[in-house]
Amino acid sequence: MTNKIYFEDLPNIKEAKKNLSKAIMKEKESVGYYNLPQFDVSSIDEFASRIDDKIEFIVVLGIGGSSLGAKAIYEFLKPVKEMKRKLYFFESTDPLNILSLLSKIEIKKSHFLVISKSGTTVETIAVFKYMLSINKNMGHYTIITDLDSPLDKFGKLKGMNIFYLPCNVGGRFSVLSTVGLLPLALCGVDIKELLSGAKKIQNSFFEDAYIKDVLFKKAFFYAKHHSTYHINCIFAYSETLKYFCQWYVQLWGESLGKKQRHSAFNVGLTPIGLIGPKDQHSFLQLIVEGTRDKSMTCIKIDDFKDELSIPDISLEELESLDILNGLEFHDLINMQCDSAMESLKILKDIPIDEIIVPRVDERSMGELIYYYELLTSLVGQLIDVDTYNQPGVELGKIILKNKLSEVRK
Amino acid sequence: MTNKIYFEDLPNIKEAKKNLSKAIMKEKESVGYYNLPQFDVSSIDEFASRIDDKIEFIVVLGIGGSSLGAKAIYEFLKPVKEMKRKLYFFESTDPLNILSLLSKIEIKKSHFLVISKSGTTVETIAVFKYMLSINKNMGHYTIITDLDSPLDKFGKLKGMNIFYLPCNVGGRFSVLSTVGLLPLALCGVDIKELLSGAKKIQNSFFEDAYIKDVLFKKAFFYAKHHSTYHINCIFAYSETLKYFCQWYVQLWGESLGKKQRHSAFNVGLTPIGLIGPKDQHSFLQLIVEGTRDKSMTCIKIDDFKDELSIPDISLEELESLDILNGLEFHDLINMQCDSAMESLKILKDIPIDEIIVPRVDERSMGELIYYYELLTSLVGQLIDVDTYNQPGVELGKIILKNKLSEVRK
Repeated sequence: MTNKIYFEDLPNIKEAKKNLSKAIMKEKESVGYYNLPQFDVSSIDEFASRIDDKIEFIVVLGIGGSSLGAKAIYEFLKPVKEMKRKLYFFESTDPLNILSLLSKIEIKKSHFLVISKSGTTVETIAVFKYMLSINKNMGHYTIITDLDSPLDKFGKLKGMNIFYLPCNVGGRFSVLSTVGLLPLALCGVDIKELLSGAKKIQNSFFEDAYIKDVLFKKAFFYAKHHSTYHINCIFAYSETLKYFCQWYVQLWGESLGKKQRHSAFNVGLTPIGLIGPKDQHSFLQLIVEGTRDKSMTCIKIDDFKDELSIPDISLEELESLDILNGLEFHDLINMQCDSAMESLKILKDIPIDEIIVPRVDERSMGELIYYYELLTSLVGQLIDVDTYNQPGVELGKIILKNKLSEVRK
Repeated sequence: MTNKIYFEDLPNIKEAKKNLSKAIMKEKESVGYYNLPQFDVSSIDEFASRIDDKIEFIVVLGIGGSSLGAKAIYEFLKPVKEMKRKLYFFESTDPLNILSLLSKIEIKKSHFLVISKSGTTVETIAVFKYMLSINKNMGHYTIITDLDSPLDKFGKLKGMNIFYLPCNVGGRFSVLSTVGLLPLALCGVDIKELLSGAKKIQNSFFEDAYIKDVLFKKAFFYAKHHSTYHINCIFAYSETLKYFCQWYVQLWGESLGKKQRHSAFNVGLTPIGLIGPKDQHSFLQLIVEGTRDKSMTCIKIDDFKDELSIPDISLEELESLDILNGLEFHDLINMQCDSAMESLKILKDIPIDEIIVPRVDERSMGELIYYYELLTSLVGQLIDVDTYNQPGVELGKIILKNKLSEVRK
């Protein structure tokens, strides 16, 4: 991938850059995701090879960090890759959603992955209990959780297949671990290529090469201006990146929306995921003429590997649109992206950058994921938050448990 | 629907309220959407009755205001309603998306609706040309556009079926006109009930009853604090409202992100659509601990009309979650909403309100749509913008046409 940045580098921050490098190297000793490109996938490969060919559906019971990553990758690749199995996600307690998903799978041809880091996620266990009432065969379920969680202990008692999250890997940073890799491997996604893409970015970053330069530039700019440009939009010009945007929203919002470590002030960078050209007809007006509180990152796919083009048909009264004739759709969508960017650059007060992803394949997605994880860590350091926790959601969980206990009385 | 507001009314604004009422009454004389609950659907009914029963797919070629409204309603009702036909939307120039949608429809069993207010929307005409290269039978296409647009003139020359947008109805306010009603009617949606829901809100508002009171309270609060709480989140507790959120994002963002009429300052309210409980595991942390720049509207569905419940299964080591046993899923999801709201109310500096939608049906959706359209108009008046135009996106369109002309040389 390449990343062109159209805003100015901050001056005189050589020392600050050194400090940030040091802080990240220190984080790397304890924060697990940094080393996931080196994740040993042999046990995943071995497990995938043992799963019966009659299994046609891989069904993830999981929510948030347990589902968003695998979904982003699966939905990115689906239009170009014949998947070995279909992947579904039960990630809600909405009864209509559960019923609608149930109508899409065949229970007897499904293998279920129960994914919960804590092992006690209310949504996941509720749906797991429901599934157990339909299918009691524990051989059809596999657990992914933290070692010694209640779910781990339950699985051990029942002799179930169990995988563990690596040490110190949080849910939203877990896609390149078993959490994301196992469901994807079962569907035939080339997980080694995925990791290899991530490794490329890892190398470039830790060897002080190209990616470190652009990531530092962006991170310092976002942090310096975080109280002005505190909404960060991704404008991705392909429908294949729709669920990647959702993954990004969780990563960015839940990591950077915090009380600052030293001041305890509420800070935050608000992520928004947009898809072009559709959202040119929805959100672009707000970016162009609205409050100057947004930065924008356009993501383009360099090669869609298709040959769909607009036929050379002239329509009477619509001759002004003959300029489209003969054009390939992938050229059109990338020209739409370029045109929107140019119109914004003229305004001079909206920070823009552009990421070009080579292809719709595993390696490209691995690069993009690791790039955004690093960017999140860098900005988190600079705005002085704990990037890896989420204390703000605990109170709601306690209130819910109290309400549930009341109902049982 | 009911709407409970958990923030304070502004004091001493009796005069301002009178002025706003006057301004809206004046708008109502020229802005077309206000009167859409009275839209005459006889020509739509008549057309729908003539469409061959062999047609199984209704295919919309349209983008933005031409697709988002019908999609929101169709996807809301789909889990509870047996649709007469399937509805698909070609709303992108992404070649992979076009190919993937083509694989889902049968051309011979499809009727195509080419929807473009201007009649020259690049995305729509590009895909229309592509469809014409596969299916040349003009009887299989119907046009919805403005009278005398280039597309209208083309359709007349070819003797095609043509419907018009009512006078002075902009794309993003057009869902309760032919633009939304025709595709929905062809799929068996009860469009009269939809309008009847909208009429209920219309009456309550223009007869100075309940809805006017809550809408005024919210509009004045949002406008007064628009430079502080300038991000407005909908947190909808049902997957059925996913595309409603996208419709809301267009309505709110494109209407209110503007240069002010008198000052020419850039203002804007940024819409974000979230789905619970999923986004409790993604975005909620940012709301709870991040910058105090967000208001939040929770939307709950009162009666899901289902009986799916969590079975009374106790899992060893997971006994703490036996509190879920026997609970209906729709009670659980609404308790999750209540718990999240309570945890936010404790903070006291996040403006919250709660909308309760009676059921997943046409009438409820009609209410919700008209409610949000009115709210948008009210806030637009108060922050002094032209709610109904979108001048900011024009430059990008001109740049694109220049680029396309260059390619042709």
